[in-house]
Amino acid sequence: MTTPYLTERRDELLRCYRDDLLHDVMPFWLRHGIDREQGGVLSALGRRGEVVDTDKAVWIQGRAAWMFGTLHNTVERRPEWLEASLSCARFLRDRCTAPSGKLYFTVTREGKPLRMRRYVYSESFAAIGYGEAFRATGEVEWRDRALAAFDLYVKFSREPGHIPPKVEPATRPTRGIGPLMILLVTAQDLRECVGDVVVRGRSLTDWAAVACEEIVQFFCKPDLKVVMEQVGPNGEVYDHFDGRLLNPGHAIEAAWFVLREARRRGDRVLARTALDMLDWMWERGWDREHGGLLYFVDLMGKPVQEYWHFQKFWWPHNEAIIATLLAHLHTGDAKYAEMHRKVHDWTYAHFPDREHGEWFGYLDRQGRVTTELKGNMWKGPFHMPRQKLVCWNLLEGRG
Amino acid sequence: MTTPYLTERRDELLRCYRDDLLHDVMPFWLRHGIDREQGGVLSALGRRGEVVDTDKAVWIQGRAAWMFGTLHNTVERRPEWLEASLSCARFLRDRCTAPSGKLYFTVTREGKPLRMRRYVYSESFAAIGYGEAFRATGEVEWRDRALAAFDLYVKFSREPGHIPPKVEPATRPTRGIGPLMILLVTAQDLRECVGDVVVRGRSLTDWAAVACEEIVQFFCKPDLKVVMEQVGPNGEVYDHFDGRLLNPGHAIEAAWFVLREARRRGDRVLARTALDMLDWMWERGWDREHGGLLYFVDLMGKPVQEYWHFQKFWWPHNEAIIATLLAHLHTGDAKYAEMHRKVHDWTYAHFPDREHGEWFGYLDRQGRVTTELKGNMWKGPFHMPRQKLVCWNLLEGRG
Repeated sequence: MTTPYLTERRDELLRCYRDDLLHDVMPFWLRHGIDREQGGVLSALGRRGEVVDTDKAVWIQGRAAWMFGTLHNTVERRPEWLEASLSCARFLRDRCTAPSGKLYFTVTREGKPLRMRRYVYSESFAAIGYGEAFRATGEVEWRDRALAAFDLYVKFSREPGHIPPKVEPATRPTRGIGPLMILLVTAQDLRECVGDVVVRGRSLTDWAAVACEEIVQFFCKPDLKVVMEQVGPNGEVYDHFDGRLLNPGHAIEAAWFVLREARRRGDRVLARTALDMLDWMWERGWDREHGGLLYFVDLMGKPVQEYWHFQKFWWPHNEAIIATLLAHLHTGDAKYAEMHRKVHDWTYAHFPDREHGEWFGYLDRQGRVTTELKGNMWKGPFHMPRQKLVCWNLLEGRG
Repeated sequence: MTTPYLTERRDELLRCYRDDLLHDVMPFWLRHGIDREQGGVLSALGRRGEVVDTDKAVWIQGRAAWMFGTLHNTVERRPEWLEASLSCARFLRDRCTAPSGKLYFTVTREGKPLRMRRYVYSESFAAIGYGEAFRATGEVEWRDRALAAFDLYVKFSREPGHIPPKVEPATRPTRGIGPLMILLVTAQDLRECVGDVVVRGRSLTDWAAVACEEIVQFFCKPDLKVVMEQVGPNGEVYDHFDGRLLNPGHAIEAAWFVLREARRRGDRVLARTALDMLDWMWERGWDREHGGLLYFVDLMGKPVQEYWHFQKFWWPHNEAIIATLLAHLHTGDAKYAEMHRKVHDWTYAHFPDREHGEWFGYLDRQGRVTTELKGNMWKGPFHMPRQKLVCWNLLEGRG
């Protein structure tokens, strides 16, 4: 499907998505990030790719294994992509796993443990990294590891008792949208690698359905036109800082995960909800004064406690570029073309480093770069190259 | 002692310190913050003093008990100050204490537990709050509680095993300057209330000496001209994000705590070190481009991972105003007068809310207000009014 907007911009967008991905972003990470001595990926890189910190983020090992693996498995079977993906998968397996089987959050360059955290996102990202390693090599060990990591993710994030809650549940029981979004996208991505297998009694498609259902049931509030980040056990809105805190980029990311699932199963009602999620959170997050997406906003327009709320982070922009493009392709609606144009243009005017390649990650409200880092414990080869790949696929009629 | 600088600015500074304290800041918190229904203080206040979140920060209960109590005990015996102080002290005692005796980090308005944290700053601030309650009332219960809270603080922060470390100590053992700074200032402030009593085998003065000694021994690096935030067990510098992370305002706060102790005991060598601490961290933290103190900088000028590093927070400016004024009074050196002028003028040009009173807490690098909040879980009636009181005392030749 194409549209006047996409006909007009197709070449330019392909340059930004396909060409930058292949010629700028992935080469940057291959050249500077992949650790040829110890394996895995070093993500704390300065403006020119110099290593600023050798400690390794475990999230990013899984995400890089996935990104390089996906490229190898779906774009072109390039040996350097395979090698990078497997290097990260092996580092995860051999150097990031605690005796309990749970993964650390950070380790040293060599893989000595630094931090263990309560939650299990390291596991979800490992699952998709191992999944791509299986798809690339056909070695069942990687499939088994992928399913075991997903199993642990589901167990910890859904069975009470495994993750000590931050806030006393007897006083204020809460549920967050984060674990459901990650359940959804992990089930989706893993399904591409290992097929629609059963884990903990449900197929991956059923886990994706559970996640969509609970996101809609507990976090989407049509009366308030909002996607909440944190609610009570039955979706109650808590009138406190944390309860009112909205993360528009995060909710917009959830919107395209849900829209993708709705399109796959031909569910028009769910697709409509996903479009609502995007509409609501665009309305709340887009900065009419300076452009770009605000990081946090308050449900009731009250001041936000988190003091970095006004900054423009790279990843919400990536998620909004995907969501608006997918929404435009799904509906043909010119409204989404206009939103895509806005967020694409603002993003590409502010984040890319024209001189040394890759992107800056953090801007102030006005769009000025606030740090020269190309990566850190949270920014690695993931949100931005994923956006480029997903959008390239969309422009080519895939997905 | 006076100086040409202070002679010239005395009236203006007294207006900013004494008059604003008495006529703007404390009335703001008395009117809007003190919770006349449930006791204690509500700190999450909007621009006009409206309550934005009713949850209560336990740190701030202790700090407000101290602030109001100090005013009552050292400035004037105003009943409303006493009442506010005791309201916070009672709320701490009755509604913030876990069955284990440890204090929570946040509770609901009524005092139901919300968050418990690993560390023990709630206890240190409770100690000084209870201390002022004792000084005001003479009731030994408050003295006993103050000493018990200090005892627990010392035990947890100095005996291994009570606070699970964030980073695996077998891989990278670390010590932070924070617990020593708080040990020092808590011992100092408590000594004013209960005298130089013995706790866990040492007098408060000896605890202050231990803190000064360890700050100098482990965190001050004359060769690098820096005060570190976090080092190895023997003061080793770790060349990683966290190891290189400097917080100039925090170190400048430490500098005046140390200088105050050095003056008290007539220790000229220690005073010289405190002045070095101030000099080094002013040099590293002062923003030559836009003025004000940067929140975080890197030891080696590398990029900082914490994405709010460039913001201007209120409290480092308060600490620098005290430190430069005390250094000027101690030395008579015009250099410190110039530093005081710079930080005072920048601070008072950017943070106060001329329309609705009190201060904004968070600015961007250029000095623009980024949130209208007057308080939150970290900002309450403490750093800023303490600065005004300490500086007023200094101008009057006290301290």
